[in-house]
Amino acid sequence: MTYTEAAAWLKEHDRYLILTHKRPYGDTIGCAAALCRGLRGLGKTAHICPGTGETHLFTPYLEGLLAPEGYEPDTVVSVDIAARGLFPDNAQPYLERVDLAIDHHPSQEFFAKETCLDAGRAACGEILYEILKELGQVNQETAVPLYVAVSTDCGCFVYGNTSANTHRVAAALMDTGIPAAELNKRHFRTKTWARLQVERLIVERMHRYEDGKIAVAPVSLSLMDEAGATEEDMEDIAAFLGQIEGVETSVTIRELAAGECKLSVRTSGGLNATKVCALLGGGGHAAAAGCTVSGTLEEAESAILDAIRQVEHDA
Amino acid sequence: MTYTEAAAWLKEHDRYLILTHKRPYGDTIGCAAALCRGLRGLGKTAHICPGTGETHLFTPYLEGLLAPEGYEPDTVVSVDIAARGLFPDNAQPYLERVDLAIDHHPSQEFFAKETCLDAGRAACGEILYEILKELGQVNQETAVPLYVAVSTDCGCFVYGNTSANTHRVAAALMDTGIPAAELNKRHFRTKTWARLQVERLIVERMHRYEDGKIAVAPVSLSLMDEAGATEEDMEDIAAFLGQIEGVETSVTIRELAAGECKLSVRTSGGLNATKVCALLGGGGHAAAAGCTVSGTLEEAESAILDAIRQVEHDA
Repeated sequence: MTYTEAAAWLKEHDRYLILTHKRPYGDTIGCAAALCRGLRGLGKTAHICPGTGETHLFTPYLEGLLAPEGYEPDTVVSVDIAARGLFPDNAQPYLERVDLAIDHHPSQEFFAKETCLDAGRAACGEILYEILKELGQVNQETAVPLYVAVSTDCGCFVYGNTSANTHRVAAALMDTGIPAAELNKRHFRTKTWARLQVERLIVERMHRYEDGKIAVAPVSLSLMDEAGATEEDMEDIAAFLGQIEGVETSVTIRELAAGECKLSVRTSGGLNATKVCALLGGGGHAAAAGCTVSGTLEEAESAILDAIRQVEHDA
Repeated sequence: MTYTEAAAWLKEHDRYLILTHKRPYGDTIGCAAALCRGLRGLGKTAHICPGTGETHLFTPYLEGLLAPEGYEPDTVVSVDIAARGLFPDNAQPYLERVDLAIDHHPSQEFFAKETCLDAGRAACGEILYEILKELGQVNQETAVPLYVAVSTDCGCFVYGNTSANTHRVAAALMDTGIPAAELNKRHFRTKTWARLQVERLIVERMHRYEDGKIAVAPVSLSLMDEAGATEEDMEDIAAFLGQIEGVETSVTIRELAAGECKLSVRTSGGLNATKVCALLGGGGHAAAAGCTVSGTLEEAESAILDAIRQVEHDA
């Protein structure tokens, strides 16, 4: 479906339920909130499926938009959900009855009856913006969640997925008078005290190899305790080491409770992270991959270093 | 002068020397490089005044653009220089003979014969973009330094000065095919090892007051030594504490060699930083001010806390 077709389709239906993906972040929450408000602006009944499990940062955008108990929708729309496996528990009943999927992931599984997909967009929010523009529903109420959607997926216009179009959408949203400075401060310029301690302890305890080209951060359960950190403080922690000058391959190893370690590998120097993680039973993208390894942090570190060296050797 | 007048004026003159401000950062360097390339694109002779004292991050943009020894310009243009006091040593001979000043600071002193000022722009680069567009000189060669100019002054589109126009200019520059992702990585997603150590030590040694609303970081000469840090690693360090959740007033105290301390105060909760610093003989803006205090780090911290409390009490 094109943007225009999706807009026409949305005008024709009613009694909407909007689904977000598992462990929802700014893009899916922002898209859901903007679509819900836009549909209500058209006089439709629209609600977001409750129990998304969002972090406290995103709760305000859902206020007044969650479906009341017992709500029976006629039309189900998913936003920013690429695959069936990403449906949260609350959305399981709708797995086989999504009427329209709006998404920007190249890995879209086409689980819905209709799909509006544009894999060239940094954020699903860029797509929602076009659809809401067609519907005449770009206003301050929809522009706030749309800005959150667009900006979080591109790290506030700093990640490599940021395009000229991303900036144009941001400009159009700011034209409505949204408090962009406040939103940026909230989402991109604020760190919790615990997060700051996590970063301090990582810098103190990390290891560097091959003249600093490889950086490894073991994040033990006791480090988390010492920092007073919860999962909410760990968002995107795997990207932390990658900012260090000279680092090409970074590995963040999280100790799990069950004597297992979860490894996240990020590469910027050409090494294929998926090949490295595949050697340990994992997978992912060329520049970002992961795997799970049984054993201690030291054993996991040694295993991943071996895997990196083997892939380097084979290249 | 309007953008159109400035463009027409630039077409009429020749043999340009372009001046940057003291301790130059992305905006002034980027503007100078873009203007120099744009003027050369028009067939003019144009050079940048050498010896700007830029950090290594910005050296590449000046390559091939610095004036040869003995160059005698006919026309002198300053970019992003607000005041006579901001002329670097190398530009002192031109203090009274600047023909055109292009700037975005409200505090512009009007030291030049002609001035093209737009205080509503986040970066002087936004103004240079308009002028180069009038001259038909927005291309990949000028767009790279222009993007550096625009993005550094707004912290890559995250600071409060970012406007819809800032995003529109970024979009137009990206349309020329510049490697924006690479530039962002270089300028906004890279920290030196020494900088990381400075941040770690600041977190370890900072003090919090009033339930965390006030944060103070004493940065001793020995902290700098321990981190292996030079001035180049300290760029914008005064903003570091302001990112901590709940902090409304942050003070960064740098120990100077001569038994003096330099204090930078940043506020986001309504306290007037200028009033605080004025009590200790300093000044600045409402949200960012500074002062110098004789004595130890402890004495400086005690003095600034007293000043903060006095301003809070008077408010």
